[in-house]
Amino acid sequence: MNGSGTASAAPTPAVPTPEAPAAPAPAPAARGAYRRLSVAERRAQLITAALTLFGHRAPEDVSLDDVAAAAKVSRPLVYRYFPGGKPQLYEAALRSAADDLEQCFAEPQTGPVTGRLAAALDRYLAFVDGHDAGFSALLQGGSVVETSRTGAIVDEVRRTAAEQVLAHLEVAEPGPRLRMMVRTWISAVEAASLIWLDEGKQPPVEELRDWLVDHFMALLTVTAASDPQTATAARAALALERPDGPVGQLGRRVLEVVADAEHLL
Amino acid sequence: MNGSGTASAAPTPAVPTPEAPAAPAPAPAARGAYRRLSVAERRAQLITAALTLFGHRAPEDVSLDDVAAAAKVSRPLVYRYFPGGKPQLYEAALRSAADDLEQCFAEPQTGPVTGRLAAALDRYLAFVDGHDAGFSALLQGGSVVETSRTGAIVDEVRRTAAEQVLAHLEVAEPGPRLRMMVRTWISAVEAASLIWLDEGKQPPVEELRDWLVDHFMALLTVTAASDPQTATAARAALALERPDGPVGQLGRRVLEVVADAEHLL
Repeated sequence: MNGSGTASAAPTPAVPTPEAPAAPAPAPAARGAYRRLSVAERRAQLITAALTLFGHRAPEDVSLDDVAAAAKVSRPLVYRYFPGGKPQLYEAALRSAADDLEQCFAEPQTGPVTGRLAAALDRYLAFVDGHDAGFSALLQGGSVVETSRTGAIVDEVRRTAAEQVLAHLEVAEPGPRLRMMVRTWISAVEAASLIWLDEGKQPPVEELRDWLVDHFMALLTVTAASDPQTATAARAALALERPDGPVGQLGRRVLEVVADAEHLL
Repeated sequence: MNGSGTASAAPTPAVPTPEAPAAPAPAPAARGAYRRLSVAERRAQLITAALTLFGHRAPEDVSLDDVAAAAKVSRPLVYRYFPGGKPQLYEAALRSAADDLEQCFAEPQTGPVTGRLAAALDRYLAFVDGHDAGFSALLQGGSVVETSRTGAIVDEVRRTAAEQVLAHLEVAEPGPRLRMMVRTWISAVEAASLIWLDEGKQPPVEELRDWLVDHFMALLTVTAASDPQTATAARAALALERPDGPVGQLGRRVLEVVADAEHLL
């Protein structure tokens, strides 16, 4: 009755009540060794344990027993918090990872755009490095825990990343070409991350990051060649670059590559 | 007993025998109106019907009854050919689509590389246009008919496309940077195709194709800036281009965009 006369017909609560009555009693020797966690703390602890496991194994290879063992709790306790079992726990872990990942792209709008992209990519690639097997399994699809909701979470991360990149280009109302360019680059970053994991994390992460920044500037420049709005954004971004920065270095190296192609100009 | 003493314990054959005994008898009025199809012909007919349906709807929205109706056969007949039901039929349809798609990328190794890519992209984008809803559903994941085998078929198409693009660059043993560049571009083509479908097939397909070709040349050039093998391939590809071709036009337009950025060089 939850101590309340008005709640007598309440369904099973979505949020578990504190653990005292229903959780399995700890063995007497252990009693008092651990502080009792609040509902929110316990939930966070289970999600952290799940995220660590799902981060480094395919979802197929993680059981609720593994999560219970990693969190040092009983399996029934995991079920009390996640009555939907593994799919619900996976979704909660993914939700938590997505929140972290969306932070990766938040970067102050000062200095050359390439520096901001490099900083965001450093955080993103550190995330990929730290959740390698889970990241591959999630994005390669076909997993048993994949649902339209997990797909929606992944899409939300992509959308957030695209919005943050567009914000750095300081275009008030980005048109379809500029949006397609940014979304395509984000897919390229994802694809390159998967290939990087697949190749045993080669090349070194700094080289991958620099190449992805070069990739962005190249895509911005060629899209600018056929879209006036992107051209305005590209000119503004180039004006912030410094001769010793990535674009200056890239420009000089590109000139060497195209030196024999003067017949085209 | 299949008329054979040695096959008395044979399991259900994977390939159906011709339809005479087990197929539902057509109504007398229809008898003789249709030529009886061979096993291979019937199978191909069912796959074609399934591919048309799966091409234009999400797999969730296609039933075996729909396939039977489209092929003008009974539902039990569909089950005789595909005892695994919808997942098996979906996989067979996907296999057939993958075979078609792999043909898209086969292109003679003559003339400028941009012309070859444009021809391959025209075929690829026509395929995307003709299988729109199914293409989106397949690549966006989370579908009920998705399995590790359907994922493997999609990966095989990507791999074939990458190998064919690499063949056009005429590099005997492509190293990791060049391979990553080509695979990343293929992901970008896929992503751009999905966005194109999502945006109601805008911009016009020729603009999308030209932009994807520009994208490839940009990526080849910036990758060349940091990888000697890619630089050799890029120089060879540029040497085949003509001033009035896509790279010549792109080069002149890019020079306009970067005209104010001389401080970087």
